[in-house]
Amino acid sequence: MSGSLVVVGTGPGKAELMTPATLAALAKATDLVGYGPYLDRIPMTRADQRRHASDNRVELERARHALSLAAAGREVVVVSGGDPGVFAMAAAVCEEIESGPESWRALDVAIIPGISAMLAVAARIGAPLGHDFCALSLSDNLQPWELIERRLDAAAGAGLVIALYNPVSRARPWQLGAAIERLRRHLPPSTPVIFGRAVTRPSEHIDIVTLDRADTVQADMATLVIVGTRETRVVARPGKLPLVYTPRAAAEVSA
Amino acid sequence: MSGSLVVVGTGPGKAELMTPATLAALAKATDLVGYGPYLDRIPMTRADQRRHASDNRVELERARHALSLAAAGREVVVVSGGDPGVFAMAAAVCEEIESGPESWRALDVAIIPGISAMLAVAARIGAPLGHDFCALSLSDNLQPWELIERRLDAAAGAGLVIALYNPVSRARPWQLGAAIERLRRHLPPSTPVIFGRAVTRPSEHIDIVTLDRADTVQADMATLVIVGTRETRVVARPGKLPLVYTPRAAAEVSA
Repeated sequence: MSGSLVVVGTGPGKAELMTPATLAALAKATDLVGYGPYLDRIPMTRADQRRHASDNRVELERARHALSLAAAGREVVVVSGGDPGVFAMAAAVCEEIESGPESWRALDVAIIPGISAMLAVAARIGAPLGHDFCALSLSDNLQPWELIERRLDAAAGAGLVIALYNPVSRARPWQLGAAIERLRRHLPPSTPVIFGRAVTRPSEHIDIVTLDRADTVQADMATLVIVGTRETRVVARPGKLPLVYTPRAAAEVSA
Repeated sequence: MSGSLVVVGTGPGKAELMTPATLAALAKATDLVGYGPYLDRIPMTRADQRRHASDNRVELERARHALSLAAAGREVVVVSGGDPGVFAMAAAVCEEIESGPESWRALDVAIIPGISAMLAVAARIGAPLGHDFCALSLSDNLQPWELIERRLDAAAGAGLVIALYNPVSRARPWQLGAAIERLRRHLPPSTPVIFGRAVTRPSEHIDIVTLDRADTVQADMATLVIVGTRETRVVARPGKLPLVYTPRAAAEVSA
């Protein structure tokens, strides 16, 4: 009775963007562990499957619970949104394996990659991540805000496209505005900014604006923000969303 | 007779990591356009499907060809590796739509996200992209080497994990060594570095080393390199690959 633990991601939410590898792991699981709204995305595949839904912001407890179940012989799948390795559960599981009982290191653990939000938003409107880019979390729960500002400075100064995860939550209402303000020190007012909310889900909403107007757009926990560079282009199309892309060729950064 | 163009990615190579959305687009296509080795990953789904294989490094011509076929009424799928929006074909298609005939802007164009190499490599060995990270291309075909160096400096200086795409090719033998040398100015010798070659494919090979030994590892066009930060941890496990992860919490950057 040796259990296993697999960490998966649901992708952005649309079922057709979950890989067969992920679906196979879910079908085999005796126990699903995850944040409630992510578990709700998973169709019931077997009647005896137990679901352990937890609140947001309890990643380490959730990882510990999943590892305990696996150690007790269950076939456990931890369900993240997006890709499990990008601001999601895989790091919390690794952290608990390192700090937990020695026996957890012998557990059968696998991580299956998924479609992270920035890839889904980018695909929906063109290719804004078409050249060098970074992914930064605006959550200052686990890191000082000064470090986030320093990373925003470095990324914009070096001409990287910036994908902003965790832009806003009820407890963190001002961080996105402060980040946009910060980026204006480095980037021209005309820089394209994309707000992709709930992309691929029924409540999808996409705004494409310029940096000087970015703070007037509503964002929430389901929003992923992409800030372009001086090179990022917006191509108007009749009766369709424009295409936003960052060219593969880059000249010298002028900053 | 209005055609369509869909840009997809094969993911890292294993069929179970290609999304149902991508498989559906491939099954519907009358024409597949792509770099030969990527087309070879796609199982034949219909006898009347035409395959247009091209060489590497002719992205714009390939995009133009695909758009011409779609404009002539064909159902075209452009096949990239990984995710089509990350150092792949989606940006080239957007570029050609912008510079091509006005009528191309009215074409039915869609991009379907896929599993990019960095996500596949990361999942294979833990969660090295568990906190803020960037993706940089080491190809200086379309950008000056000085700009690449500047981005390496900025990323390492700000404590971002770095995923290096296009680390080596026959025409670019020295760039990876120069990048590693550059990163040593910012990061301690013990920084974990992962070389993931052909991950999820039969010829998969993974090396986990420290930055001071990184340039002794073989890399090629099928390799994706991930360079950790001061915070990145390596967790030894009995009889298994270690887990490499970057914790979700970050202290001040000491650089």
